[in-house]
Formats: sequence, C-alpha cells, structure tokens
Amino acid sequence: ANKKLLIVAGDGIGPEVMTQVKRVIAWFDKRQGLTFDVGEELVGGVSYDKHKTPLTDEVMGKALEADAVLLGAVGGPKWDNLPFADKPERGLLRLRKEMELFANLRPALVFDALAEASSLKTELVKGLDIMIVRELTGGVYFGSPRGIETLPNGERRGINTQVYTTSEIVRVARVAFELAQKRSKKLCSVEKANVMESGVLWREEVTKLAPEYKDVALSHMYADNCAMQLVRQPKQFDVIVTDNLFGDLLSDCAAMLTGSLGMLPSASLGATDQQGRRRALYEPVHGSAPDIAGQGKANPLAALLSYSMMLRYSFDLAKEADLLDTAAKNVVAKGFRTGDIMSPGATLVSTTGMGDEILKEL
Amino acid sequence: ANKKLLIVAGDGIGPEVMTQVKRVIAWFDKRQGLTFDVGEELVGGVSYDKHKTPLTDEVMGKALEADAVLLGAVGGPKWDNLPFADKPERGLLRLRKEMELFANLRPALVFDALAEASSLKTELVKGLDIMIVRELTGGVYFGSPRGIETLPNGERRGINTQVYTTSEIVRVARVAFELAQKRSKKLCSVEKANVMESGVLWREEVTKLAPEYKDVALSHMYADNCAMQLVRQPKQFDVIVTDNLFGDLLSDCAAMLTGSLGMLPSASLGATDQQGRRRALYEPVHGSAPDIAGQGKANPLAALLSYSMMLRYSFDLAKEADLLDTAAKNVVAKGFRTGDIMSPGATLVSTTGMGDEILKEL
Ligand SMILES: CC(C)[C@H](C(=O)O)[C@@H](O)C(=O)O
Ligand SMILES: CC(C)[C@H](C(=O)O)[C@@H](O)C(=O)O
Repeated sequence: ANKKLLIVAGDGIGPEVMTQVKRVIAWFDKRQGLTFDVGEELVGGVSYDKHKTPLTDEVMGKALEADAVLLGAVGGPKWDNLPFADKPERGLLRLRKEMELFANLRPALVFDALAEASSLKTELVKGLDIMIVRELTGGVYFGSPRGIETLPNGERRGINTQVYTTSEIVRVARVAFELAQKRSKKLCSVEKANVMESGVLWREEVTKLAPEYKDVALSHMYADNCAMQLVRQPKQFDVIVTDNLFGDLLSDCAAMLTGSLGMLPSASLGATDQQGRRRALYEPVHGSAPDIAGQGKANPLAALLSYSMMLRYSFDLAKEADLLDTAAKNVVAKGFRTGDIMSPGATLVSTTGMGDEILKEL
Repeated sequence: ANKKLLIVAGDGIGPEVMTQVKRVIAWFDKRQGLTFDVGEELVGGVSYDKHKTPLTDEVMGKALEADAVLLGAVGGPKWDNLPFADKPERGLLRLRKEMELFANLRPALVFDALAEASSLKTELVKGLDIMIVRELTGGVYFGSPRGIETLPNGERRGINTQVYTTSEIVRVARVAFELAQKRSKKLCSVEKANVMESGVLWREEVTKLAPEYKDVALSHMYADNCAMQLVRQPKQFDVIVTDNLFGDLLSDCAAMLTGSLGMLPSASLGATDQQGRRRALYEPVHGSAPDIAGQGKANPLAALLSYSMMLRYSFDLAKEADLLDTAAKNVVAKGFRTGDIMSPGATLVSTTGMGDEILKEL
C-alpha cells in the first residue's frame, strides 16, 4: 500500500505555500514514481470557521493514521479573541500532544546566497548551521493545574504549570545527543537551573546521560545567556537541547538571525513503535504571516524543504530529498527571491513563480 | 539624616566594578557635598562562602532599611552545584521579593560611539533606545508548588508554577504605561496568550488599562515573535512590558544586540509607600562574568550608570546624574574602552583606568 501523507495547510499563508508543495508532490509522483496517498484536512482557524473547533476528532484520527503529516501554519488576528480552547493554536498543540511528537528539530541554517539578508553582520552568520532540539509535548504548554480563577477578593489569577519528568527529559535529550553525534559532536543543554527546580532536574538528567555519549562534548547554559550568545556569536553552537517554552523563543530567535526565515523547515518526531513506525509532523518555521496572506508574496521554500525533510526522515528517501534541496539551493543561487529574502539585483518572484522555478530546476 | 545607600558588590566582577563606583561616590561627596551613609554587605556566593547562605537576615534587614541598594552581580561556576536554596541567585531573588521590587527597568540603549560594536548591522541599531519593563516578583520565579519529587515508579518530576494575579499585572503595567507616556507613547505588551492562560489574563488586564492612557498606543505580541522582532528590526519598539521569565530572556537579548552590554544599567523599583519612599535596587545588566573576574578587565560603566540611575530615580538628583552620564558618554566618545567594547583605534583601559578617566572627566 502507498504511504499515507496528510496535508493540513491551516491559516494565513499556509494554503498558498502548500499549493506549491502539492505541485512538487505531483512532480515526484509523475516523474519519479513516488506515489503517496495524499489526504488534505483543516486545522486551525479555518477548521474553527467551519466546525467550531480548531481540530475535529476526525482529522485527529487521520493524523494518527498517517505516515507523516505536513502542516502549513495556524493562527491570525481574526481568531485572536476566541476563547482559549477554540484558538487555532489549540489544533496544532493537540496534534503535537496526541501524536506524541516530543522532539522538535529546528535547524537554523544560513543559505550562502542569503547570508547578507541577516540583520547580523555577514561574517557572524555566514556558514551558520545550528540545530535546536526543542521538547514539544511537555512543560508549561501542557502542565496542569492551569486556567484563570477568580479569588474571593474579586481579583483573578492565571496559572500554568511547568513540569517535566525524568523520562520526558531523557527521551528528548537522547535525540539531541544522537544528532550531535552525527554533526559536530557538541551539545548545549539550556534551562534556568539557577531559578527553576524543573531546570535543576533537566540539567541533572541530561548530565547523567553524558557517559553514554562520550564522543559528544556536553555543556550547559542558562536560557537568558543563550538568548544573548545566539545574538553575540551564534557559530559557537552546534546542537542545542531545551524545553518547550525556551525552545519556542530561542528557536525563533535563532531562525530570525539566519536571515533565511522563509527557508527554514522543521520536523517534529515521536517515538519509534514496535513496527518501526515513527509519527512525524513537518512544518515551516515561519508562521501564518496574516499580513501578506493571499497576496502571492509568501515564500514556499520552507514548506518545500519541510517536505524534503519528510522524504528524508520519515521515508528514508535521501536521494529524492537531496534532489529537492539542491533545486531550492540552485533557485536561490540563481537570484530568484520572494519578497522576504529579496535583495538588490535579485529577481522578485511570487509564491507561484518560486514554485515554477523549483519545477524547472527539478 | 543622610540617605542610606547599601552596596552589595556580590560575586565575579561585582567587587571590581563597585570599587570604581565607590571612587565616584567619594568624588560626589567631596566635590558636590553629596553625602550618603554608605554601607557595604555580602550577597551571593561570597555570602555563602562566609555564612553558608547567599543572604543573611541581617543583610536583608539592612536592605529593607536602605534608601537604595546598589548591587554588582551574583553567581559563578564555583557555586553552580550547590543545593538550590544555597545558590547565589537565591540571595538576589530574596532581595527582589522581600523588597517587593516588582518593576525592573532595563534600558537597551545604543551609545553612538559603540553602534559598530553591535553584532547587528549598524544601521539597524544606531540610535536604538528601548525600555524593557520586566515584572520581577511574580511568575514562575516565585510561584508554588515548586520542587523536585520522586514518583512511585522511581521517576523524578520537576515542577514550577507560573502564576499572576490581576494586581500584580496591573501595577507593573502602570509603570510601563507611565514610562511610555514620557517617551515615544508606544507600549508593546508581550506574553504567550495563544498557549498559556496566565498570558491570556496578562493581555486582558493590560488591555483594560489602556483607556486610562489614551495617549499611549498599546500593542500585543507573542514572546517568540518578540524575540524575532528584536533581532529583525529592534527600532520598532519603544517600551516593552512583560513577565518575569520572558523579561529575563528578552531583556538580555535586547541588551546584547546594542553592543553596549557593558554600559547598561538597570533599576528595580517597588511601590511608593505613604512616606513617599520607594524601595529600589540598581544593578548593571551584565552578570558576574567569572571568566574575567579579578583581572581588571571588567567595564565599570554599567555599574557607574546604575549609580547615576539611582541618583535620578531614588534621590531626584537629575543634575548630578546628568553630570555622571555625560562623563561616561564623553569618556567613550574620546575612545577609552575596556575589552568588552574595544574597537580598532580605541584606547584599551583597565577597570581602574576607566574609573580614572571618569574622575578626570568629572
Ligand atoms: C503557534 C504556536 C502554538 C507555536 C508554539 O508556541 O509552539 C509556534 O509558535 C511554534 O513555535 O511552533
Ligand atoms: C541571576 C539571575 C537570578 C537573574 C534572573 O534570572 O532574574 C539574572 O539573570 C537577571 O536577569 O537579573
């Protein structure tokens, strides 16, 4: 049977960039005999608009059955004032939680042709290649008690709980150690152990694993210092492992300083089950960018590279993934640019235009 | 009676930079008749080494009695493996909590002469002047339950609690609104209301205050996006108000991108009591920098400017504060630099050398 691929394009620029991905999927089907059963469903604000929930049980079920899920983006000001449980983001968070996607891999990579696009000085970012491994199903995102309560004196109180267990820390740390082994053998674990006990536990558990990965140099850093060091000297890092909330901020910061934000894919991985199957969701690092949605301005490369990450990690199709990665690199090297990465002398193309160039290149 | 000033130099480079501050205090005493009762006490690792606690009750008492406290920095690898309650940071956190210093003002300011020192492209930071107002006595830093527990199955679990009440949010937001009124009348409130209920409450309470500050344009931003935007286009911000943990990361990120980290002071303010007295602690934004401690390399300007912030905010001595601020600006403009802000063609000076230049300038 064909492998099952579920596309959830979501909100904002999600559908536009996913349209280009579908063209590339069709190309691989026709030219390379790479045939998936492709399903397409709603998540986020568009799901709320139709079903009054950001993720229906039906779609959740399909995601659990799929061999891989490809997501566009969720959220936008239209839904900002919805009750908490109805917000578009809840759809994405439910997907992550129920698929148990505990390891979020976020590369912060500078494409040579785009090094000048960074707000940092070129020499500080040229060649930059960081991998942030963010814990994705724990911490303050999912801990309870949580909510808003009214106190006897009429005040309100908002509560969330930051919580991590040994096993939650260990499984994501192992993913990071293993990645570090395949890369520059340097791992930096990030928390606030000077302020938070959950950070103390994090540091202790990561430290305990180190003897099993003797070839990896493990270091520890406080999250505030990491935010500083990313800005000061990003190339000091190779693999960073951190919790859900710190990972949210730090990976966005790292992504932005590459100047290649519109080019960055990500993978969210679960555990490998007895059948050797590993749940996985792939999505661009950029968000739904409501300000440019529907205008044909969005950069589809991050979504395309997310698809290539899927080929590589979920289906072991390194050759095909390389083909697509190279096409993306070449198109950018040839000077084709969407607005987000535009630079003087380059050729401005639309979302579809970028898709055209990728297909030509393939 | 003279006003009481308590100096707690702390760890690492704290004592060295504070030595220069004391020279300047002595100068103001002698030349300007500005006489304080200056006390000096231990906090942090040095207190632990002597008293087995990062802050004694006696010092806590003196801090509560003081009209203002001037702190150097706390922490260092020497004390990293102490039990949680003994860590140097607990001393600082206890000071903040018991003095009820709920509003931490962290300017991220680029000194013209240092704009090139930023890792960001000069045009993105030249003239940058952001004020981050960080909530300092609430949130996950102080919430309970907290701690590490062992579960029946032998696993451990680390817990911290993110909690904010209406009044905690309102009082810090008012400080931010008032600052915005005196500055560019733009306030950006930062949380993760899309993920955390405590963030939903934060946004609602800040929004409710807006009608009282009609001249201030209030906007809201998610913390991950704020981390991005600070790197992408920092000049879009004027005043930012955020919680304790986000403020920790975002203010460090903002400070680092100025390239003027060694120059940045901060103020932590409490409520004004019936006698019109407002508890306050001033400290440089930089940390204890153990790697260069004791080598005469530290930049004393952030500590000196913290003292000038104290003159201005706690003692209404704007003229004297201006005098010191101008001296600092001039010394840097004349090309005197400690290692952290050194640039080609400038004159490298030691910690004491910088103090000498300031005194000459005064
Ligand atoms: C959309 C939102 C819920 C999400 C998060 O906070 O995790 C996003 O910011 C991300 O980083 O994937
Ligand atoms: C030293 C530490 C406890 C402190 C904090 O986390 O608040 C520091 O990083 C700061 O920002 O003042």
